[in-house]
Amino acid sequence: MTLTPEQEAEIAEARSHARPTLRATSEGMEKHLYVAHEVLDHGFIRVIDYMGDDSAIVQAARVSYGAGTKHVQNDEGLIRYLMRHWHSTPFEMCEVKLHVKLPVFVARQWIRHRTANVNEYSARYSILDREFYIPEPSQLAAQSTVNNQGRGELLEGAEAQRVLDLLRDDAMRAYDHYEDMLSQEGQKGLARELARMNLPANVYTQWYWKIDLHNLFHFLRLRADEHAQYEIRAYAEVMCGIARDWVPLAYGAFEDYRLGGVTLSGKAVEVLKRRLAGETVTQETSGMSKGEWREFEGVWG
Amino acid sequence: MTLTPEQEAEIAEARSHARPTLRATSEGMEKHLYVAHEVLDHGFIRVIDYMGDDSAIVQAARVSYGAGTKHVQNDEGLIRYLMRHWHSTPFEMCEVKLHVKLPVFVARQWIRHRTANVNEYSARYSILDREFYIPEPSQLAAQSTVNNQGRGELLEGAEAQRVLDLLRDDAMRAYDHYEDMLSQEGQKGLARELARMNLPANVYTQWYWKIDLHNLFHFLRLRADEHAQYEIRAYAEVMCGIARDWVPLAYGAFEDYRLGGVTLSGKAVEVLKRRLAGETVTQETSGMSKGEWREFEGVWG
Amino acid sequence: MTLTPEQEAEIAEARSHARPTLRATSEGMEKHLYVAHEVLDHGFIRVIDYMGDDSAIVQAARVSYGAGTKHVQNDEGLIRYLMRHWHSTPFEMCEVKLHVKLPVFVARQWIRHRTANVNEYSARYSILDREFYIPEPSQLAAQSTVNNQGRGELLEGAEAQRVLDLLRDDAMRAYDHYEDMLSQEGQKGLARELARMNLPANVYTQWYWKIDLHNLFHFLRLRADEHAQYEIRAYAEVMCGIARDWVPLAYGAFEDYRLGGVTLSGKAVEVLKRRLAGETVTQETSGMSKGEWREFEGVWG
Amino acid sequence: MTLTPEQEAEIAEARSHARPTLRATSEGMEKHLYVAHEVLDHGFIRVIDYMGDDSAIVQAARVSYGAGTKHVQNDEGLIRYLMRHWHSTPFEMCEVKLHVKLPVFVARQWIRHRTANVNEYSARYSILDREFYIPEPSQLAAQSTVNNQGRGELLEGAEAQRVLDLLRDDAMRAYDHYEDMLSQEGQKGLARELARMNLPANVYTQWYWKIDLHNLFHFLRLRADEHAQYEIRAYAEVMCGIARDWVPLAYGAFEDYRLGGVTLSGKAVEVLKRRLAGETVTQETSGMSKGEWREFEGVWG
Repeated sequence: MTLTPEQEAEIAEARSHARPTLRATSEGMEKHLYVAHEVLDHGFIRVIDYMGDDSAIVQAARVSYGAGTKHVQNDEGLIRYLMRHWHSTPFEMCEVKLHVKLPVFVARQWIRHRTANVNEYSARYSILDREFYIPEPSQLAAQSTVNNQGRGELLEGAEAQRVLDLLRDDAMRAYDHYEDMLSQEGQKGLARELARMNLPANVYTQWYWKIDLHNLFHFLRLRADEHAQYEIRAYAEVMCGIARDWVPLAYGAFEDYRLGGVTLSGKAVEVLKRRLAGETVTQETSGMSKGEWREFEGVWG
Repeated sequence: MTLTPEQEAEIAEARSHARPTLRATSEGMEKHLYVAHEVLDHGFIRVIDYMGDDSAIVQAARVSYGAGTKHVQNDEGLIRYLMRHWHSTPFEMCEVKLHVKLPVFVARQWIRHRTANVNEYSARYSILDREFYIPEPSQLAAQSTVNNQGRGELLEGAEAQRVLDLLRDDAMRAYDHYEDMLSQEGQKGLARELARMNLPANVYTQWYWKIDLHNLFHFLRLRADEHAQYEIRAYAEVMCGIARDWVPLAYGAFEDYRLGGVTLSGKAVEVLKRRLAGETVTQETSGMSKGEWREFEGVWG
Repeated sequence: MTLTPEQEAEIAEARSHARPTLRATSEGMEKHLYVAHEVLDHGFIRVIDYMGDDSAIVQAARVSYGAGTKHVQNDEGLIRYLMRHWHSTPFEMCEVKLHVKLPVFVARQWIRHRTANVNEYSARYSILDREFYIPEPSQLAAQSTVNNQGRGELLEGAEAQRVLDLLRDDAMRAYDHYEDMLSQEGQKGLARELARMNLPANVYTQWYWKIDLHNLFHFLRLRADEHAQYEIRAYAEVMCGIARDWVPLAYGAFEDYRLGGVTLSGKAVEVLKRRLAGETVTQETSGMSKGEWREFEGVWG
Repeated sequence: MTLTPEQEAEIAEARSHARPTLRATSEGMEKHLYVAHEVLDHGFIRVIDYMGDDSAIVQAARVSYGAGTKHVQNDEGLIRYLMRHWHSTPFEMCEVKLHVKLPVFVARQWIRHRTANVNEYSARYSILDREFYIPEPSQLAAQSTVNNQGRGELLEGAEAQRVLDLLRDDAMRAYDHYEDMLSQEGQKGLARELARMNLPANVYTQWYWKIDLHNLFHFLRLRADEHAQYEIRAYAEVMCGIARDWVPLAYGAFEDYRLGGVTLSGKAVEVLKRRLAGETVTQETSGMSKGEWREFEGVWG
């Protein structure tokens, strides 16, 4: 596991002091505070702080829409209405701060989501630990032959073993040399900001990451998707579980309208209407390209 | 005052239930929660929620800089170091959510700060109240004769009275007609989204506004400044007091480095160095334009 | 019309000097440069500058996806693929700058889109013109009885006339008093930043507004929608026409996948699948709320 | 050099077709279009597109401030006024799009600036080239003994050679193994999205990066600063030269007020005033901490 006894003691300590607050609290989220959820071989996600709960979303919406929201009888109905109609601002009123440990190549995908706040461990100031992501054999997949960014069949036997050996040996050697270059025994020792460049993209880094609920959902829609790379999806799925406990009504609406939802083009709407009217429609008569048709058929069969 | 007895009862109710939390809490901020701070004649600011405290800033910085922060001996020193060197991301780790009631012309300036979340009362859905900002006589200033965006001398006597009468009468008449247009007695009643266009810019609106501490400080630097319009400055000053109670160390650093700080151009640095070396420098020998020199002399005399 | 002869001469002058450039140009957009498209009674939209064209989107995508994009045979196919899969960053590589004249209540909705750059005419520095939006009789609608934010039937006869008279008279009186308060004949004259508060929300303002194509499409999806208020939709529709001429392939994809598209919840997907399989589904057996069902039936009949 | 003959031919081709445009053009910037400015050992910066020039800044400011800007007699004076008073929005009206090739560890610092648009070469879709940053001997510095994030003395002799050998050998070996893992000769070949994790942080990537002038200046203030890591500063300095040619007046103001400027805390202002009045002030009597005093003395001697 990824935590040292010192870290576990720190977490226990942090969880031992409840303080009174007048703020909105989420019982489901209090259970997560500070606890480390393991991800991949050395990574984790920890909730460090949060702001708001389902009722905060409702409260913000009622400020906006005033009497206009009275006809929606309950909180769940209102939250589903907001999600369905892309009223995103009430969801921005909730915020979460996570402590995440993750491989650098995952961090590079993650950071592309710009509407968030980040404090990352700096390898200019400090020395990175000897921790590298090495995939489970069940994740050692070949390049997909149909999808340029996807994975295909599993590697097996000698090929799998050789890949694992290369990844592990190169990482260890790179780290040995990183230490050698930094070392000041009998020498000056290379600047940290330079030595780090020898480390491969599976080295672990960590950061504090803070984001509002609307943007978290946007992140999760893209990164908990089956087309996302497995390694970032592993983090997204843990965050889905956390969000479900934090804001169960909002998460339920997100699950139905976004994760489980489908966006149809105008052409696709027409094809479905023709089918509902009993017509047989083929790619040729659909007006769609072959690629679109393949994706359409993937959903509607 | 701006609160109805119902609203006061709601606030008392909200403040009567403390709940236990494992999150960071700020005692100074807990005192502000839900309480309405009056601003102008009908406005207010209320803290609805917050995330983080001074220690959250320190904690985020230590994640980033790791061992690099150990030589800074205490939290205050580290926070001042971060502020001095424009390390803004640790300050982004704190967040505050306010409920603000304010005149529309103030709201229009305020909203220009884009890095914040807003839910405003919608006059498309709901009917605005009959509340308008009418300046105190002590704020009824003439157009400045030296500054295109400033105020000069106070209006007096008949002129002051005439202005107050015009503002008040026009606002009341506009609201009467707003109500008349909306009225459905014996008629259809104009759509709210249209009727509202008759209301002047001193009508009050309200919103939930959520912002991180770094961006709040940026807002306050511009809006608590003496060049800001008095009416928005009145809100900024209340927020300064709230921030001081919430994050006293960060606010202290902000006060010293930003509110009380001065930015010098390269030319101004040269002039000061020449003066420190005993030279007499005039505008003609300073390399500055007349405008720059006037501002420079305003600080350095 | 809204332009003075001086303004028309300025536009003609600006359009008379073509300069050579090595940048990507869009012939369809060059025709729009500086020309004023009239909107509402005194408003306009003018294209002041733009960056990029359809090929810039393709070029950026090919940098990202490298060899991965080669199997998409043509630019249109690639642009449609990007739009379908929510790959938004290539669309961010195009930018447009508009000069817009619009009523303040429209500006207040518009500015809620934060990811844009704005320079608005400042009524602190300068004096606003005597121009107010007065709706066409064909837009004088009653409050909807089924939709809290919508318009219902048209007002007619005396009621319509009374509304028009109130809007026009109040605007003129407010402006007369604005001028009186500013006047320095025999008095000091109220500061502009104060006097402006007397002006109603249908007074015209103007701004430069710059936005990238991805965010423009997001704006247009919300504001060219039939649920948007007519007055902002009038601007959105002009912008749709401009975008069509600027980036015809991207606009075509936007029209099919966003404007003409439909988002289905997981529940709605299930209902459609059951219907395609021949089952009769009612609201009671759909798992949807009444509101959702009404919206679903609105599309699928 | 970093360009292949094919790339050079492409650039020459792109520069051979001038088209007429009615947009603002910057002659200084036209010279840069498409040309590759070399940075580090394999990197480059190329201007791909731009929007606006000095006059676009002035034009946007005059829309905002209207008559209020008339007293500033010329464009340079107005631009300097805007810069001095932190009026950032007119600078946001200019935009530039760059094609940059850079080592991954530089890209990781760079991307922390969130207010920009990016399309990066994807190593999920495509295979990276065998190009790694290896520092010049003149950049092989030891860890600073006084600054946790800085560089100190140069490494020399055997230590320097050993570091260069390690960096070069590890990079080559990592790339060999990357190719081996991807290879499909007699095996399935590991998915690209996994194989890339073996590559160290000095491998080169590339992206399209688009940013407005205000945010570019903010980036340059931080990254052209002597405290920035040399490798990103090398890029920032090339961009400074480009900006100088593009918007000479704005760049001049930026150079004077930001790059060459100094921010003083309230305490520092007091100390300078006391010194100007003839008083001798020491750290003990300054009210500053030792760290602040050291930095203050660094400027004021």
